[in-house]
Amino acid sequence: MRTFRLTLEYDGTDFCGWQGQPGRRTVQGEVERACRETCGTGARVTAAGRTDAGVHAAGQVAGVKLEWRRGPERLRDALNARLPADVAVIGCAEAPAGFDARRDAVARVYRYAVLARSVRSALLRRVAWWVREPLDAGAMRQAARLFEGHRDFSAFTTKEGRARGAIRHVTRCRVAVDAPLILLDVEGNAFLHHMVRLIAAAVVEAGRGRLAAARIRRSLARLDTEPPAAMAPPQGLCLLAVRYRDERRLPLPAWPAGAGIVGGRVP
Amino acid sequence: MRTFRLTLEYDGTDFCGWQGQPGRRTVQGEVERACRETCGTGARVTAAGRTDAGVHAAGQVAGVKLEWRRGPERLRDALNARLPADVAVIGCAEAPAGFDARRDAVARVYRYAVLARSVRSALLRRVAWWVREPLDAGAMRQAARLFEGHRDFSAFTTKEGRARGAIRHVTRCRVAVDAPLILLDVEGNAFLHHMVRLIAAAVVEAGRGRLAAARIRRSLARLDTEPPAAMAPPQGLCLLAVRYRDERRLPLPAWPAGAGIVGGRVP
Repeated sequence: MRTFRLTLEYDGTDFCGWQGQPGRRTVQGEVERACRETCGTGARVTAAGRTDAGVHAAGQVAGVKLEWRRGPERLRDALNARLPADVAVIGCAEAPAGFDARRDAVARVYRYAVLARSVRSALLRRVAWWVREPLDAGAMRQAARLFEGHRDFSAFTTKEGRARGAIRHVTRCRVAVDAPLILLDVEGNAFLHHMVRLIAAAVVEAGRGRLAAARIRRSLARLDTEPPAAMAPPQGLCLLAVRYRDERRLPLPAWPAGAGIVGGRVP
Repeated sequence: MRTFRLTLEYDGTDFCGWQGQPGRRTVQGEVERACRETCGTGARVTAAGRTDAGVHAAGQVAGVKLEWRRGPERLRDALNARLPADVAVIGCAEAPAGFDARRDAVARVYRYAVLARSVRSALLRRVAWWVREPLDAGAMRQAARLFEGHRDFSAFTTKEGRARGAIRHVTRCRVAVDAPLILLDVEGNAFLHHMVRLIAAAVVEAGRGRLAAARIRRSLARLDTEPPAAMAPPQGLCLLAVRYRDERRLPLPAWPAGAGIVGGRVP
């Protein structure tokens, strides 16, 4: 048996998330089926981040042990030939025998895309959350910064999410405006269930002028355990990258690009 | 009755093209139905460009005469409320009574996107043509330039397409590399049926080293009426914009979304 590290791209629209569930179409289920069909043996595929239903990935990382005698590129192509169109193995490398995609990851990078314009978009509907009301980007920037640092995110997850401790280290939580898109980048050592979507919702609610910084601070201080805003929808979220120790840091990809195309009237 | 000019965005994936056909799901059919439901009268919607099945639009322009007493923004919102998620009215303005979206247009701008990398993409599968073989961008640039100018495009359309004359003025046919995407921008006064996809196919075939400039020149000189390469698939094509006389020229939008994200291994 050899251990492989797979980098995966997927369009989460038609998946019930990453994690395998009987009778549901999941990314893990599809990747494990492709591995079985390719190598003829049972395969357990473990991912760095268990994305929710409807959430996308441009750089999910997964580990798998397989009986495979040829090179990693051949494995990549064999898996892609068996995977549906909405999942692709974009990288495949042999990894040390003990490689654990989840435990070995030192950081995850997520991006949440908000489409801030008066009309909805047909072309970006699958990759951004349309918010019709005007948003104050300055207020969003200020709100985002509150999440940076070692924080207790008990109010930004589910009851199950906080069961084993909710302190996480968010190294970066920043807002960038690429009109009509507003992008929230969140990087941290690890994330609780629904955490990025609850942070995104709070940042958008601050941008709408309906949520004060003080309320977010109360949540982070555990003075209030209810999330300060209803969870943002899944389609705006994309797992951009997972980082491992001793790895070269490549520049982050743009997502979703094509902001200009939905800027309203084109020439 | 008042005349309105609609700017439309649509994801062509699940449409049988622009033009209404009984029993088929078309963009024209959906927009006319939304107009009828909104205004209660029959409406004929005419577009500047009749896009094929699977082809997208970020700036299609259509004209329609309607009984509508309120403002154009209210009309836009009323139509969007009745249109399916994969079509959106992104602009609506009152137009002079004689406005004809097709005849009055002085230029159309199309972009054809090629994904040039060794592995397919799950996130860009709906908006780019995946070409696995290495492409020579220099050869593609040279081939593209051959199409600029007043040319006879008889070999770059169907038999019906050339029935009423095939001379068109292509003002710009250029290749831009935004790795791993290669973008072909084509602007012209008007286009024949399948013309951009047949030009894109020829440019890609030149990039593969399988089509000489001389063969393209023969086609443009009507010495050979067969298209030099099999038509490129529809999903790579997007109608970016339609231009009218006396209009301010806005910068062209970026398309397709997510170019940076599929650069192979992300960090």
